[in-house]
Amino acid sequence: QMTFPLVLSILLVTTTVRAFQYTDLAQYIDSHEEEYVEALRDWVAIESDSANVLKRPDLHRMMEATAQKLRQMGGAVELVDIGEQELPDGQTLALPKVVSAQFGNDTRKHTVCVYGHVDVQPAKKEDGWATDPYNLTDINGNLYGRGASDNKAPVLAWIHAVEAYQALNMELPVNVKFVIEGMEETGSNGLDVMIVAQRDTFFSDVDYIIISDCGWLSRRPALTYGTRGNCYFTAEVQGPKQDLHSGVYGGVVIEPMTDLIGILDSLISPSGTILVPGIREAVAPLSDEEWKMYQDIQFDVDSYKNKIGVDQLMYNNKVDVLAHLWRYPTVSIHGIEGVTAKFSIRQVPNMDPQVVKNQVTDYLHSVFAKRKSPNKLKVTMVIGAKPWLADTEHPLYEAGKAAVKRVFDTDPDLIREGGTIPIAKTFQDVTGKDIIMMPIGGFDDGLHSQNEKMSRYNYIEGTKLFVTFLDEVSKIKKTSV
Amino acid sequence: QMTFPLVLSILLVTTTVRAFQYTDLAQYIDSHEEEYVEALRDWVAIESDSANVLKRPDLHRMMEATAQKLRQMGGAVELVDIGEQELPDGQTLALPKVVSAQFGNDTRKHTVCVYGHVDVQPAKKEDGWATDPYNLTDINGNLYGRGASDNKAPVLAWIHAVEAYQALNMELPVNVKFVIEGMEETGSNGLDVMIVAQRDTFFSDVDYIIISDCGWLSRRPALTYGTRGNCYFTAEVQGPKQDLHSGVYGGVVIEPMTDLIGILDSLISPSGTILVPGIREAVAPLSDEEWKMYQDIQFDVDSYKNKIGVDQLMYNNKVDVLAHLWRYPTVSIHGIEGVTAKFSIRQVPNMDPQVVKNQVTDYLHSVFAKRKSPNKLKVTMVIGAKPWLADTEHPLYEAGKAAVKRVFDTDPDLIREGGTIPIAKTFQDVTGKDIIMMPIGGFDDGLHSQNEKMSRYNYIEGTKLFVTFLDEVSKIKKTSV
Repeated sequence: QMTFPLVLSILLVTTTVRAFQYTDLAQYIDSHEEEYVEALRDWVAIESDSANVLKRPDLHRMMEATAQKLRQMGGAVELVDIGEQELPDGQTLALPKVVSAQFGNDTRKHTVCVYGHVDVQPAKKEDGWATDPYNLTDINGNLYGRGASDNKAPVLAWIHAVEAYQALNMELPVNVKFVIEGMEETGSNGLDVMIVAQRDTFFSDVDYIIISDCGWLSRRPALTYGTRGNCYFTAEVQGPKQDLHSGVYGGVVIEPMTDLIGILDSLISPSGTILVPGIREAVAPLSDEEWKMYQDIQFDVDSYKNKIGVDQLMYNNKVDVLAHLWRYPTVSIHGIEGVTAKFSIRQVPNMDPQVVKNQVTDYLHSVFAKRKSPNKLKVTMVIGAKPWLADTEHPLYEAGKAAVKRVFDTDPDLIREGGTIPIAKTFQDVTGKDIIMMPIGGFDDGLHSQNEKMSRYNYIEGTKLFVTFLDEVSKIKKTSV
Repeated sequence: QMTFPLVLSILLVTTTVRAFQYTDLAQYIDSHEEEYVEALRDWVAIESDSANVLKRPDLHRMMEATAQKLRQMGGAVELVDIGEQELPDGQTLALPKVVSAQFGNDTRKHTVCVYGHVDVQPAKKEDGWATDPYNLTDINGNLYGRGASDNKAPVLAWIHAVEAYQALNMELPVNVKFVIEGMEETGSNGLDVMIVAQRDTFFSDVDYIIISDCGWLSRRPALTYGTRGNCYFTAEVQGPKQDLHSGVYGGVVIEPMTDLIGILDSLISPSGTILVPGIREAVAPLSDEEWKMYQDIQFDVDSYKNKIGVDQLMYNNKVDVLAHLWRYPTVSIHGIEGVTAKFSIRQVPNMDPQVVKNQVTDYLHSVFAKRKSPNKLKVTMVIGAKPWLADTEHPLYEAGKAAVKRVFDTDPDLIREGGTIPIAKTFQDVTGKDIIMMPIGGFDDGLHSQNEKMSRYNYIEGTKLFVTFLDEVSKIKKTSV
C-alpha cells in the first residue's frame, strides 16, 4: 500500500511537472491527516530513548525506520557511522548512525538542509503520565506521547512536506537535504565530528540550514532568531587531605563545604542580580526597537506563570520577562557532588566566554580570599558555548515571515530561546551557512516533561508551513546569499 | 590446641582460686602477645563490612566467630536475633545477630557490661591502602588492617582480659557481660530494640557499662567522659511544579537552588561562628576548672594539624581547639541532593534538641522570608540525639583513673569526643546505668580512613588496663552506686 502513490508519482514525473500551488498542497495535506497521525504513532511507539543504554537497539531501529522512510521516497540516503560512545564504566556502545538524505540536486536551485532528531527523553508511565508515553493517544486533538513534539512530528512534517510535492507531481522549489540524528537529548555525541568531516562534501552545496527543534511562545506562530550561550563551571574546594568526620573535627576545621556554599551564594542576589563584576556591563543594551518588538510579541505573563506553576516571577511585565529569558544572562546553580559545585551562566551578546571565564574565576577567588580559608579553591570552565543570533532582516527570515503570513494569515512572533542549542552554533561555525529556526511545536507541548504532546493543528498546519517555506526560499535571489 | 588451656583452667578452678595479682596477669598477657596478634589477624581477615550487603555472609560469620570464642571460654552465650533491615530497594536482609555473653553471676559482686562491635567500615586496597586491608600486617609494631582499632582489637582485649583471669585461675573481681553487635558502622540498626527488650532481663543486674570504641587524644592514655549530640536537619526548597530547564526558564524564575544556597550560607560565618540566634547563648560557659583541665591535657595543636592535613585551624591555642571540638556546638553542611540540603548541628550541654529545632527552623524561615522568594521552604529535624556527659568524679571514673595510673604510671587525660556515640545515650536512657568510655586505640589509628592500625603497644597494654580496671571496679562500694 506504501508503494502505490510512489509508483504513481514517478509515472506522473515522467509526464508533466507542475509548479508550486499552495491550495493543492494544503488540500493534499489536510486529506492525509490520518496517515500523518499514523506515521507519528509508529514513530512514537519506538522507545528511542538515547539516555538509556538498554534502549539502544530501539534507537538503532528508529534510525533505520527514518532512513527507510526517506529511501522509499526516492531520496539518496546514507546511514553515517559516527562511532562509539564511552560509558562511565569504560565500556563502549555504538552510537546511532546519523541519517543523511538528499532530494534533488539542481544546481540552479537553492539547497536547504533540515536538521532534526528522532531520539527522545526518557519517559515512564509512573513518572506521572496520564497515558502510555509510547502509545500515541489523541485527546481533544492533542496527540500525547514521548517525542511527539520533540522532535518526531516536526521531522515527519518535513518528510510529509517533501512527499506532498512528490505526490502532486510538483517540482521541489529547492533541493532538500536532511540530517537526522539520534543523540540530541544526550548532547549530540558524534554529530560535531560528522559535520566537520562532511563540511566539504554533503554540506558544501547547502545554502541554508533549518532547525525545527523548538516551540512557539504562544498560540501565534514564531520564528526563533537567537539562543543563549552557556558557560558551564565547576568549583571545587579542596580541604584537608583526609576525609574528615564532621563530628570528630567539626568546630575547628574550616570545612570545604561551608566555603563552597559561601562562594556559590556570592554569585547571585536573592532577587536574581548577577553579582560577578563585569558580566552585566558586557550585555548589549536593549534598544528601543527591541523593546518595541518585545512589546508586540504575543505573550501573557499570567498564563506563563500558570503554565510553569509559579506564583511570582522576578519581573512582572512582558518586556522584562522576555528580555531576561532571552537576552540577559542568568546564573543557575545545578548541584553539589562531594565538594564540587556545578553552575552555569547563560550567555548573551556581547559577552565573550573567555572573558566570562576570567570574570567568574577572578571574582570567586576574590570572594574566597576574603573568607581567609586555609582550603583551596579550583574553578574550571567546562563548557564555553557562544550564544547564537540571526539577523531577522535576512532574506531567509523574510522568507520565513512570508511563509507564516501565507499559511496562518498573521505575522510571526520573532522570538529567542533561553536555552542553548549548541548544534546551531556548530552548524554556523563549521559550515558558515545561514540558519533559521522555524518551530511548529506548541508553547504548551511539555517538552522533556510528562504528558508531552503535539496538537493535530500544529502538526498539519506546520506541514503546510514547511511546503510554503520551501517555495519562499526559492524566491531568494542567489546573489543575496 | 585451643581446648588445652581451657581444660587446664577448669581443673585449677576445682582446686584453688587466687585473688587479683597484677604482676602475674601482666606477665601472662606479655607472654601471649603473639597469640593475641594471631587472634586479631583471624578477625581482621573476615570482611565484616556492615555497609556492603554482599558481605553480609562474612558479617554473620564474624558474629558466629565471636560467639564461638566466648563459648569456648565457658561464657553463657546467646546470639540474639534482632530482625531484618529494609534496603532502599524494598528488599529485606537479616541483620547480624547480637552476641551477648556472661561470665560469673555472683550477686555479691558488681556486674559490668562491655559493649563493642565487630563490624567494620568498607575498605579496598585501591582506596589508597599501603597493605591489603584484610590481611593484618605488622610494620614497626603497628598492626595495619581494617577494623584493627575500630573495634576488633579492643573487643579482643576485653576477651583476653577475662581469659587471663581464667588461665591464671584468678577469680573474676566482677561479673563480666558482653554485648557485641555487628551494625555499629551503619547506625546500630536493631540494637536499640534489643536493649529495650532486655532491659529487665540481661541488663537488670548490670551496674556499669563500658565502651572502648574510641581513641586516645595523644600518646597519653585517656578516659572519655562526653560526646556531642547531633541535631540533623534537612532543608528543602520547593519551587515550580515542573522540573524547569535552567536554560529555558533561567532569568525569570527564582530558582529553588539559589534560595537553598542562600539559607545554607546564613548558618555559619566564614570564621566558623554559628549565626543561628540563641544557639551560642545556650552553651554552658567554660569554667575556670574546665579551662585548667583542658590546659593540662596532652595535645599538640601543630601535630594535630599535621595529622589531619590542614595548614590552619579556626583556633590556634590548645584550649580553644579542644573546647571547640568537644564542648561548643558546630554546624556542618553535608551536601545537597536535588533541592534538599542536609546539615547538622553538633550539640553540647545545655542545649536542648527540641529548642535547637525551633531556633534553626525559625531562623531559616526568617532568612528565607527576607529573600521574598515565591518558593516554599521546609525544614525538618531528622535526628535529635542529645549529648552525653559523665561525671569524672564518679567512682567509676575514679576506678578508671586508678587503673590507668597502675598500668601506665600516669594520670589519664580526661577527654571528650566531638562526634556522637548514640548508643552511649541509649544505654544511659534505657538502662539508667552509669557508663564509662575507656579507649585503648591510639590517637593516630586512622579510624574510618585508609591504613587503619592498632599498635601492639596499645593492644597489649590495653589488655592490662582492662584486667586492672575490673579489679578497680570491684573496689567500688556497692552503696555508692
